[in-house]
Amino acid sequence: MFSERIERLMGSLIREILAAAQRPEVISFAGGLPAASCLPQLDFSGLPPDLAQYGTTEGEPQLRELIAAQARALGLECSAQQVLVLSGSQQAIDLASKLFIDPGTPLVTEGPTYLAALQSFNLFGADITAVAQEDGQLPPAKLEQALRTAKPRLTYLIPSFQNPSGACYSEENRRALAEVIDAHGLPVFEDDPYRALSYDGEAPAPLVSHLKKTPWIYAGSFSKTLAPGLRIGYLIASPELYPHLVKLKQSTDLHSNRPGQWFIAQQLADPAFPAHLQSLRDTYRIGRDAMQMALEKHFADLADWQVPKGGLFFWLTLKRPQDTRELLKVALAECNVAFMPGEPFYPNPQDGIGHLRLNFSHAAVERIDEGIARLAELVRAAHR
Amino acid sequence: MFSERIERLMGSLIREILAAAQRPEVISFAGGLPAASCLPQLDFSGLPPDLAQYGTTEGEPQLRELIAAQARALGLECSAQQVLVLSGSQQAIDLASKLFIDPGTPLVTEGPTYLAALQSFNLFGADITAVAQEDGQLPPAKLEQALRTAKPRLTYLIPSFQNPSGACYSEENRRALAEVIDAHGLPVFEDDPYRALSYDGEAPAPLVSHLKKTPWIYAGSFSKTLAPGLRIGYLIASPELYPHLVKLKQSTDLHSNRPGQWFIAQQLADPAFPAHLQSLRDTYRIGRDAMQMALEKHFADLADWQVPKGGLFFWLTLKRPQDTRELLKVALAECNVAFMPGEPFYPNPQDGIGHLRLNFSHAAVERIDEGIARLAELVRAAHR
Repeated sequence: MFSERIERLMGSLIREILAAAQRPEVISFAGGLPAASCLPQLDFSGLPPDLAQYGTTEGEPQLRELIAAQARALGLECSAQQVLVLSGSQQAIDLASKLFIDPGTPLVTEGPTYLAALQSFNLFGADITAVAQEDGQLPPAKLEQALRTAKPRLTYLIPSFQNPSGACYSEENRRALAEVIDAHGLPVFEDDPYRALSYDGEAPAPLVSHLKKTPWIYAGSFSKTLAPGLRIGYLIASPELYPHLVKLKQSTDLHSNRPGQWFIAQQLADPAFPAHLQSLRDTYRIGRDAMQMALEKHFADLADWQVPKGGLFFWLTLKRPQDTRELLKVALAECNVAFMPGEPFYPNPQDGIGHLRLNFSHAAVERIDEGIARLAELVRAAHR
Repeated sequence: MFSERIERLMGSLIREILAAAQRPEVISFAGGLPAASCLPQLDFSGLPPDLAQYGTTEGEPQLRELIAAQARALGLECSAQQVLVLSGSQQAIDLASKLFIDPGTPLVTEGPTYLAALQSFNLFGADITAVAQEDGQLPPAKLEQALRTAKPRLTYLIPSFQNPSGACYSEENRRALAEVIDAHGLPVFEDDPYRALSYDGEAPAPLVSHLKKTPWIYAGSFSKTLAPGLRIGYLIASPELYPHLVKLKQSTDLHSNRPGQWFIAQQLADPAFPAHLQSLRDTYRIGRDAMQMALEKHFADLADWQVPKGGLFFWLTLKRPQDTRELLKVALAECNVAFMPGEPFYPNPQDGIGHLRLNFSHAAVERIDEGIARLAELVRAAHR
């Protein structure tokens, strides 16, 4: 009755468990939501009335210019004509899936990597090879081996404050990876939603800015820095990919909502925007530091982790691996704590046994220690 | 380098021709844009601040309730739990394509049918059988034959003021078609964006409201009655399809923009909304009547057509068929008139030689006669 891809539509077991955990007594480290206090006021006064009409697939000209200027400031040479405004940056993953993936198409990602990217790639039938990070970097030799053996149509990477690992690749690492990618000439997709959330200095220039000849897509989000409810993100693409992505976007949803585009453009052009970003960083850094302190207190003998220099997550590796999907059920039922199990972040979930992703941006900072303590108690109990 | 589907990504020749025709001196009957005077004022005052945060994939509860109530008032039994708010109703086509279509999957549509639906179905690799309308109705025996021979995974129909033909099926015709569909039990997708634009009485109840056992999707739009720039549409689906469509929507763009959903809900709940619809109808009826008068004056010996009782288009069948894609080029170059050629509205464009789609909602009403006169002159010249 359905297409073959529906068999690959991932079970939403975890989503269902977590949906059942919206009770106020639950301390949730599960999602990746911005703190309510960090969201901008949605002021639409001054909105031009003609934005009620249909717009262009590519996006509003002013917003495209601002996005291109922002990218150039990061070191990515591009023009506004390479910018495609999206209905949230998740759409970049849908469009890239459509552009590249047939059933059986080889892809390379990091392992772990963004859960919802894996879901889309799997839905379209990709055959995914994961490359593991080492000490928060991606070893170029391992990427080289994966490109050589898998010959992927697309390599999907999150070099800056990765979801879920929090890793941020050094400039040297990025240059080495770009060199490997250029040597093979196989298209690369750099997903960069967390860059602005940096707590110990800026992330290095985008990896794709170091490419000399390989086709690339660079995707960015306003959901972490402004307002996810507007569903506005973007991609920038090299000229050989861009026209296809525009046609795919047109066939998917014609264009992105115009009031949202206008609001984002107003914010980006506002002289107060850098101060808004600084206040985000200051707020989330407090959450990050509180969680680090709680983890040192309660998890030092139970898990290993690196302190994330940006993004929204700690990534724990349990010293004694256990299936964290089972742990989640018990954590919710017995101690009102939620987190994201690590397994679904791997193309092969069995590779991910014994990891936890902990978000520090959404739970109230004064409840972090208590939540981490309860979780540690539970992990410890499993050892007995 | 790309997926196979990119070979099927339709040429945008016509889009490019028409994009080049945005000059103010062009009288355009090409698009399907609402009249600027019919667009609502985009007033977002009172917008709840928490809509800046992520929302649910299914959509805002209040809007889902209002949409379900509206559908029940049309005779479609459903609950708010069956409503999925979309990023424009074009997204219903993308999600249905994902749900049903593998390369080679048989589909049945009307011929002609909505161009952008054909583009999406083709992109996913559908093998489309077209059923021709006769005297503005869809012959049940012909649909029966198509279902029997093609065994389609999905039948896509636009029973009310169809784009492009303007046809609106009678209640009797709908009941007979529903009976045929129920006998085969093969899923059906009713696309219903034009229903509210009725000029000579209401359209009959949705076709799917007559189904007794077949899975169905019913899609609706606010782009013709409110503001297309907001990109908010919806689908309602039978319970066996709905959960898959929600998961597909989540993987595509997480959820639809929340300020747009809020604005639409405010409008639907406004006691002045029925008067707004009435004023739309009164405005577009003037355009419809002006175009009918102009066609009678200039096209009586050149083409056949039916007066559309709703929607936004006249559909002309030339008495002496000619390739209207060529005609468009000349019309733009020599007489500054734009229209939509008929060929791309057919799964097999060669079936569509000699049709023109003429929009009457967007060009200034006082220029309609002049534009139609110039176009007739051109068609007449081709006869010499």
